[in-house]
Amino acid sequence: MADTVYISTKVSFSAAHRMFRPDLSDEENMRIFGKCANPGAHGHNYVVEVTLRGTPDENTGMVTDLAELKHHLRREVVDKLDHRHLNEDVEGLKGKVPSVENLVRLVWDTLEPGITGCELYEVRIWETDKNCAWYRGGA
Amino acid sequence: MADTVYISTKVSFSAAHRMFRPDLSDEENMRIFGKCANPGAHGHNYVVEVTLRGTPDENTGMVTDLAELKHHLRREVVDKLDHRHLNEDVEGLKGKVPSVENLVRLVWDTLEPGITGCELYEVRIWETDKNCAWYRGGA
Amino acid sequence: MADTVYISTKVSFSAAHRMFRPDLSDEENMRIFGKCANPGAHGHNYVVEVTLRGTPDENTGMVTDLAELKHHLRREVVDKLDHRHLNEDVEGLKGKVPSVENLVRLVWDTLEPGITGCELYEVRIWETDKNCAWYRGGA
Amino acid sequence: MADTVYISTKVSFSAAHRMFRPDLSDEENMRIFGKCANPGAHGHNYVVEVTLRGTPDENTGMVTDLAELKHHLRREVVDKLDHRHLNEDVEGLKGKVPSVENLVRLVWDTLEPGITGCELYEVRIWETDKNCAWYRGGA
Amino acid sequence: MADTVYISTKVSFSAAHRMFRPDLSDEENMRIFGKCANPGAHGHNYVVEVTLRGTPDENTGMVTDLAELKHHLRREVVDKLDHRHLNEDVEGLKGKVPSVENLVRLVWDTLEPGITGCELYEVRIWETDKNCAWYRGGA
Amino acid sequence: MADTVYISTKVSFSAAHRMFRPDLSDEENMRIFGKCANPGAHGHNYVVEVTLRGTPDENTGMVTDLAELKHHLRREVVDKLDHRHLNEDVEGLKGKVPSVENLVRLVWDTLEPGITGCELYEVRIWETDKNCAWYRGGA
Repeated sequence: MADTVYISTKVSFSAAHRMFRPDLSDEENMRIFGKCANPGAHGHNYVVEVTLRGTPDENTGMVTDLAELKHHLRREVVDKLDHRHLNEDVEGLKGKVPSVENLVRLVWDTLEPGITGCELYEVRIWETDKNCAWYRGGA
Repeated sequence: MADTVYISTKVSFSAAHRMFRPDLSDEENMRIFGKCANPGAHGHNYVVEVTLRGTPDENTGMVTDLAELKHHLRREVVDKLDHRHLNEDVEGLKGKVPSVENLVRLVWDTLEPGITGCELYEVRIWETDKNCAWYRGGA
Repeated sequence: MADTVYISTKVSFSAAHRMFRPDLSDEENMRIFGKCANPGAHGHNYVVEVTLRGTPDENTGMVTDLAELKHHLRREVVDKLDHRHLNEDVEGLKGKVPSVENLVRLVWDTLEPGITGCELYEVRIWETDKNCAWYRGGA
Repeated sequence: MADTVYISTKVSFSAAHRMFRPDLSDEENMRIFGKCANPGAHGHNYVVEVTLRGTPDENTGMVTDLAELKHHLRREVVDKLDHRHLNEDVEGLKGKVPSVENLVRLVWDTLEPGITGCELYEVRIWETDKNCAWYRGGA
Repeated sequence: MADTVYISTKVSFSAAHRMFRPDLSDEENMRIFGKCANPGAHGHNYVVEVTLRGTPDENTGMVTDLAELKHHLRREVVDKLDHRHLNEDVEGLKGKVPSVENLVRLVWDTLEPGITGCELYEVRIWETDKNCAWYRGGA
Repeated sequence: MADTVYISTKVSFSAAHRMFRPDLSDEENMRIFGKCANPGAHGHNYVVEVTLRGTPDENTGMVTDLAELKHHLRREVVDKLDHRHLNEDVEGLKGKVPSVENLVRLVWDTLEPGITGCELYEVRIWETDKNCAWYRGGA
């Protein structure tokens, strides 16, 4: 694909989470997760950046319809995660530690089936302005 | 004070909160606070910017010892609010809606007594990269 | 007002403009406005930050309903200016140079009548990440 | 190349554009491109990030002379695109939709012949602080 | 001045400095300035934001000619401070601790005489993305 | 590794440096390095972003213990480089031009032996908000 172009866009949401495993004691959770296991939960402004890759359409000059992609992100990411408690309110994280690594996997799996005409290349999530995780389908 | 200079520094913390009043029903809370009242709580990466004003010391050229100011901020702001649930874990917000307006007042009141040799001019708190509140002692 | 708190939020829009006066020749416009007078127009991602000030409501802890403020901004700023040519498409700039100074006045005058229960303190507009103008009601 | 290092720098420019194809009606353009097809044009502050890769020179410790690279970028990108209307004023976009995908291809093709002693790895263009496209020579 | 508008722009420069007083021993300097007094010097990317205020000209819609202001800043700030050692290379800091407070005073005093047709309102200097000082003519 | 996730974090430090080779005259250094060779040295706020890749642990959901990684970065990067003169105070740069390319190699070589349980994927260093270099083990 000599003409491959990558295109990215971002959405953000605010959520609470607590790093802990319900099968462990508070002490063991604190030992593993430190202050991130504080019982009262804490939270973040998450930023999700999604990158698609493909060949721009000859007529439109675009890899994808960005407005549609943004609707997809709003429906599948913002509407499901914004102003939620990740441990309690999010089906796909039930029984899992809501780490940014597990979250980036969840967002990839949620978005991937709805991408058509090009390829989902990467999902990147910033938990703070310093820390982020990204996933490229396992590669 | 013809030589007044202002000096600012920032710290950040991550916390959960829920906008609601315990004396109201969930329905009334949702009507007033919208999605910010979601029962499961959500959270933010808060950024606190503190500004002092004063006359630079002739010998040091500084309005204040910035290293000491940062310790003050870490002890009084970060240690007390980081990785906390603002509704449940923070004494000074007990019985109050943890709005950014109430939070900025709390931080001002917590910091102000420890500022010496110059004046606390402003406390500013960003709840997201779009929304912030600031307080200047009521002026 | 010993309890005055300031609260800010931001919206952004993308628009084209050309710095020029139709009553002057292209040469005179270029002399006054430089490359900003290029006949073909150019454009910016504008960021508008609006600050209100008031006393937080005792029951809600808020100076204003931020969700309502954001609707007000979307309706009066984004819907009217986003993806527009400021010289040609915007009623309030007809016959004026679309400088960021004139734009900030226009946005103030558009927003001010809709602010109730507190005071419009400042409108600030960034034309680029380096240049901005702000207006405080003329003070 | 066990010693490959990547080096990036950024420039920015402001331009107007309108997403549309002159062979289609305004209605068809609006259906395909939405508000980006508004007849009056709009604009952006574009940021271009260019990445080279190569082996640092043993004597200078540098992959490339960054000052020279910046001159190259100013001459080939800023001087040709800043304060221009992309649809009307830019030779390389004549007859094309000025999408960020087509723009990133144009900038790559413009810069690539002037890169010597190392390799052009990537050109990335942000149209807003949320949306960007990048090109790696088609890979 | 019911029509006062404020206008800001930014420039940046990179410089080395060492917080110390030559009349004191290294030990005393370390006690007062901490790691900022390290004998080997350190450095920063400084950002200078200058704000003018005035009444926009009726014909141009501008408080000041921004291109001229930028030349003024480049000549008086960037050309004199960029890629310099503040303790050793800058006349106006001779015999002074190169604190950001003293630097902001120096930049104000350097720029102020060259501002005509409007008023210098504020000079703000960021030493890092967290710390800044600003000066408003002593008010 | 179908489950590979990438995880990044950032630290920053402030340092002085001068681009020059002691075996060359000042004139030759200025010819090669321009203003970066100014005898008085200059400096930067450096930002270091480190990316690891690996399979998240089934129990913790994490690729690595981020708190431990941050301690590693503070000990090996910040403690060794912050508030230092890179030409004079840093063992690993002795006899080398302190270019960002050489610096990114040094940081990689310093960090790599301490990474266990996953792989060091990339070290990226910003010298300013416009310029950065990155290294991926030579690939």
